[in-house]
Amino acid sequence: MIRAGIIGATGYAGSELVRLLLNHRDVRIVWYGSRSYIDKRFYEVYGNMFQIVEEICKDDDLNELAGQADVIFTATPQGFLAGILTEEILSRVKIVDLSADYRIKDVAVYEKWYGIEHKSPQFIEEAVYGLCEINRDRITDRTRLVANPGCYTTCSILTAYPMVKEGLIDENTLIIDAKSGTSGAGRGAKTANLFCEVNENIKAYGVACHRHTPEIEEQLGYAGNCQVTVSFTPHLVPMNRGILVTEYARLRRRADGTLPGWEEIKAVYDSYYGKEKFVRVLERGVCPETKWVEGSNYVDIGFTIDERTGRIIMMGALDNLVKGAAGQAVQNMNLLFGLPEDRGLEFVPCFP
Amino acid sequence: MIRAGIIGATGYAGSELVRLLLNHRDVRIVWYGSRSYIDKRFYEVYGNMFQIVEEICKDDDLNELAGQADVIFTATPQGFLAGILTEEILSRVKIVDLSADYRIKDVAVYEKWYGIEHKSPQFIEEAVYGLCEINRDRITDRTRLVANPGCYTTCSILTAYPMVKEGLIDENTLIIDAKSGTSGAGRGAKTANLFCEVNENIKAYGVACHRHTPEIEEQLGYAGNCQVTVSFTPHLVPMNRGILVTEYARLRRRADGTLPGWEEIKAVYDSYYGKEKFVRVLERGVCPETKWVEGSNYVDIGFTIDERTGRIIMMGALDNLVKGAAGQAVQNMNLLFGLPEDRGLEFVPCFP
Amino acid sequence: MIRAGIIGATGYAGSELVRLLLNHRDVRIVWYGSRSYIDKRFYEVYGNMFQIVEEICKDDDLNELAGQADVIFTATPQGFLAGILTEEILSRVKIVDLSADYRIKDVAVYEKWYGIEHKSPQFIEEAVYGLCEINRDRITDRTRLVANPGCYTTCSILTAYPMVKEGLIDENTLIIDAKSGTSGAGRGAKTANLFCEVNENIKAYGVACHRHTPEIEEQLGYAGNCQVTVSFTPHLVPMNRGILVTEYARLRRRADGTLPGWEEIKAVYDSYYGKEKFVRVLERGVCPETKWVEGSNYVDIGFTIDERTGRIIMMGALDNLVKGAAGQAVQNMNLLFGLPEDRGLEFVPCFP
Amino acid sequence: MIRAGIIGATGYAGSELVRLLLNHRDVRIVWYGSRSYIDKRFYEVYGNMFQIVEEICKDDDLNELAGQADVIFTATPQGFLAGILTEEILSRVKIVDLSADYRIKDVAVYEKWYGIEHKSPQFIEEAVYGLCEINRDRITDRTRLVANPGCYTTCSILTAYPMVKEGLIDENTLIIDAKSGTSGAGRGAKTANLFCEVNENIKAYGVACHRHTPEIEEQLGYAGNCQVTVSFTPHLVPMNRGILVTEYARLRRRADGTLPGWEEIKAVYDSYYGKEKFVRVLERGVCPETKWVEGSNYVDIGFTIDERTGRIIMMGALDNLVKGAAGQAVQNMNLLFGLPEDRGLEFVPCFP
Repeated sequence: MIRAGIIGATGYAGSELVRLLLNHRDVRIVWYGSRSYIDKRFYEVYGNMFQIVEEICKDDDLNELAGQADVIFTATPQGFLAGILTEEILSRVKIVDLSADYRIKDVAVYEKWYGIEHKSPQFIEEAVYGLCEINRDRITDRTRLVANPGCYTTCSILTAYPMVKEGLIDENTLIIDAKSGTSGAGRGAKTANLFCEVNENIKAYGVACHRHTPEIEEQLGYAGNCQVTVSFTPHLVPMNRGILVTEYARLRRRADGTLPGWEEIKAVYDSYYGKEKFVRVLERGVCPETKWVEGSNYVDIGFTIDERTGRIIMMGALDNLVKGAAGQAVQNMNLLFGLPEDRGLEFVPCFP
Repeated sequence: MIRAGIIGATGYAGSELVRLLLNHRDVRIVWYGSRSYIDKRFYEVYGNMFQIVEEICKDDDLNELAGQADVIFTATPQGFLAGILTEEILSRVKIVDLSADYRIKDVAVYEKWYGIEHKSPQFIEEAVYGLCEINRDRITDRTRLVANPGCYTTCSILTAYPMVKEGLIDENTLIIDAKSGTSGAGRGAKTANLFCEVNENIKAYGVACHRHTPEIEEQLGYAGNCQVTVSFTPHLVPMNRGILVTEYARLRRRADGTLPGWEEIKAVYDSYYGKEKFVRVLERGVCPETKWVEGSNYVDIGFTIDERTGRIIMMGALDNLVKGAAGQAVQNMNLLFGLPEDRGLEFVPCFP
Repeated sequence: MIRAGIIGATGYAGSELVRLLLNHRDVRIVWYGSRSYIDKRFYEVYGNMFQIVEEICKDDDLNELAGQADVIFTATPQGFLAGILTEEILSRVKIVDLSADYRIKDVAVYEKWYGIEHKSPQFIEEAVYGLCEINRDRITDRTRLVANPGCYTTCSILTAYPMVKEGLIDENTLIIDAKSGTSGAGRGAKTANLFCEVNENIKAYGVACHRHTPEIEEQLGYAGNCQVTVSFTPHLVPMNRGILVTEYARLRRRADGTLPGWEEIKAVYDSYYGKEKFVRVLERGVCPETKWVEGSNYVDIGFTIDERTGRIIMMGALDNLVKGAAGQAVQNMNLLFGLPEDRGLEFVPCFP
Repeated sequence: MIRAGIIGATGYAGSELVRLLLNHRDVRIVWYGSRSYIDKRFYEVYGNMFQIVEEICKDDDLNELAGQADVIFTATPQGFLAGILTEEILSRVKIVDLSADYRIKDVAVYEKWYGIEHKSPQFIEEAVYGLCEINRDRITDRTRLVANPGCYTTCSILTAYPMVKEGLIDENTLIIDAKSGTSGAGRGAKTANLFCEVNENIKAYGVACHRHTPEIEEQLGYAGNCQVTVSFTPHLVPMNRGILVTEYARLRRRADGTLPGWEEIKAVYDSYYGKEKFVRVLERGVCPETKWVEGSNYVDIGFTIDERTGRIIMMGALDNLVKGAAGQAVQNMNLLFGLPEDRGLEFVPCFP
């Protein structure tokens, strides 16, 4: 039985981790960390857990927790883990970090986009970027630190990855228009996230400056073995869960000047994802819908080739709290402990 | 392995049954019945099932299905099952009927409220009303026909049951104000259920004439061993899932003229539900919220005693597609086959 | 041109007042008071007002404002106005108070339900309860202080008023089950009002202790010339605007023991509201829907007589920010200044 | 007093026209045409109109109506008007057509994208494309036929127009990612538009084949005096009203290789829209939100320059039923009859 501790258990991603781990037969949660609700029962913060979780919220003492857990999930604000992580902690416990602290290899890029100093850059190189479908070989029982990817990032990368990797699109024309449910904004009490402000409304935000941008560019750069610079625009959608990305790029033409056909591109996607349980490449003419993956770890991907413009329009959908956060964290944990990758993640999407 | 067939698999209750049964380790679905989508792949009707269910929708041939299945779930319009059920079918297969055909013992009452003739009243007496927490002793491997309760009904009855049973309220003052998510209205393409008609709107409907009324009255009548006549008013709420009932009744006073206290009433509720996994009696001051039970088989119940008016206000919440339909149907199936009652129903509620 | 000042202009009720007064040909807003946003442009707080309102938010200095305005609207927290109101202010300017400070005549009742001391009880008697359809004769150019009714209250009272006034129902059986959109909770940044907490959810709150209860009881008591004690239960609904009340009461029977008929009751309602522009008594079989009054000052009322239980079920719907707050405040202002009562309130409800 | 007839009055755009025209002091509606609801009272179809509109729905007899009205609004399916329009009708009455029948000058393009034969191409040339801010000089008392622009189109064109017109962007890099509320899908009873299918969901549709594409391309082509080919992707958003477009294009660099600055671009936008009442160019750093224009005829436009990618991201928001349909139709009518362009359109946006 894997003993798991959660730091930041009372945020939306943290509480989703609780939901998923309670369903995982090989895991026992030993620590519900929540600085804001210390000594409160977890179910007083999340009423859905009444009579399911009796535990009390504890402080975020990573050192103490390291002695009681086999794995720690940190669903904490940027900079938190970097500020307290030590070699000693890492030598005693595995960490899956849901924050951005170890996602970006270039510390200068991190510090520029996040506007904070990185307090423990010495662990960045060791950290494995936990996009399981791409990096699973590097996530093993010897791995100590996993940087769990961002929600927008997971969706954006997986949707475009085969195209970039195979050089089928001009990577400098890549534009990612992303739409997210409101749980991605967290549970902090901000006016902008009140029901009446979000409901019956849609808006872009963080235009040309959202922090997930460099993460997307770095990972797609590895894929294409080139510099990738994207336009990334997130939007806030009046729904609880779900991310949809719509990605545009110019298709590279064949030697004869024609565009590749739908089946040809489909075959490429299938060569990457055909055996992936959690990535579903949709049939011709089907566009992904966030509701079709809700509550599950699936990513749905579809695409259309636009002969008129020479572009491919790629679309991807996932549940931002599952594959975009807690589900992928569990998937990473499974890899870290040599379990089947889908253990505890067998949820069929819930509709409607 | 129990072989299950579903008639009406492409309605919302039917597709929820699919979701739940896919998660049930002892069940294999052998028949996806849907007259509207014969020969279509189930996932073409419900995109969430892509790469999960490969089967094709079939006709609603109960006779043929009876030879292939151990249990049949009928999630069909009123009158359908009554119109085709035969002794031969019942002798070969167990049936859990999610329609109202066998819920009401008095056929005249059924025909009056539903406005249709009952075509097979000979099976009404045999049918067990499948409110598991109350009738579980009567749902055994010898039971052939279970009348699965309605969504409003389950919530309304369970919330008031201990009070009526113990004679703690004046049953003739019972008023049930119910609020339901829109999935309760089904997947039929009606203008009144369009997004733009339901969203940002709330209304009552079926005032003083909703069909779940006699079902509630009959069952509470058994509980109280008396005639119960209630005011029942359903409302349509702009959300997908969930039913909340707010019930009002005059508390019977103690011999000394005082009202019973909160703890006293709580103790009564606990005596009925304290050991029930799926019924959670909330702590003092906590009101049930539909989101806290979403996707799960739980019913949450809370209450307040109003000294000023001498009334108790009881509140109950459930997911209309789970405990209010498919979940309870699975719970009944578990009883029919001697399985643990919560098998396949271990879902932790999903929030947010 | 009436010069109007608003204290609390950046709350939802305050900003709705701005919207309505901008549409009022006889009014000029001279003061946008908002302690939280002093020196900010109003449109920076409410983007919908960009290029429409150029003014800057000012402090809530009632004394200074009294010299610049003909009427002051206070859309402020309970206790604010009572804490600063003076005879001098009242001698210089009319006040329409959207808070509860002067709604309740018995100061002890106010202090008990609101839990605060009333700092200027000397003005309570003078204040007119501004439910226009009922008290319009008392709101004249000599009136100095109007206590604008609460949102739940307006809807609850108008729906039951003719029945209570005519003694057609047993007023001690009156139960009011109310459902409100989330704007009624205000714009304060509270976790409970975040989009993800409210969306896809419904719950009761303030059960048997909501502050609008004594206000309803007092006013209905005047109507019936009797003591009225009601059960009042508010619910939070995932929509921005709208209140729906469903009210239950035992109908008094005729001398011959029969219940009055629908037409008879309709005639009573018509005798009260037939000439009221803003109260619409619906046709037989039609239930009010909040969407049908959205953005307008209408109240829609319908009812059903339940022969089985001997009860009448009355339903009322209004827009909590218009007839439930700012619209009624403008209606009161019109009365105060001798204008047609519907001036500036001609909005046709917006659907969908 | 202008006598106005509406064909298709019971669709969402038609009923919004009713709302707007009731508020227009110079107009009297003389004909509520609705083939689906002939002989029903309009308020039976739209409950919000109870006691406001007493008229009965009539057939869609354009000939008869032409003799009774000064202007006819056709809010009808594609092909309807083209199928019945005659010179005689046009000689007697002005027509504002909210369908696409006369928007596209090249009949072959129309027939290809709409898949139907155009039955009266002889009127295409005469029809003026009623995008008021751009074509107002051509909409006069001598104009007989106005082709009212589509909702996506109005938003897409106005947002990019100054950039294309001034040659500031490479028009072949223009990508339009559009998001629409569900009222844009109409009031037809389709499963895909049911509340439970749309709510908590977002998806793209009509990818690379939506019918508004050629309309956008044609009009922007006139602006830039060049061929424009765009990628246009609409998305369905769980809200009633509102369209948001996010547009991406490569900025042309200055002679010195640098990008133009924000103020420079803002000045360009202001030169086009600075005096336009209904187009609001937002301040730096402000992104448009659909809620800020709800119920009004405004279009809000904002933009960001992305130095990293050399692109401009332009954003536009409008209410699809007002500026995207009925509001613009009224604006066109005002031009046709020499009235102030904003007559009857003075609505302040409604928030929240």
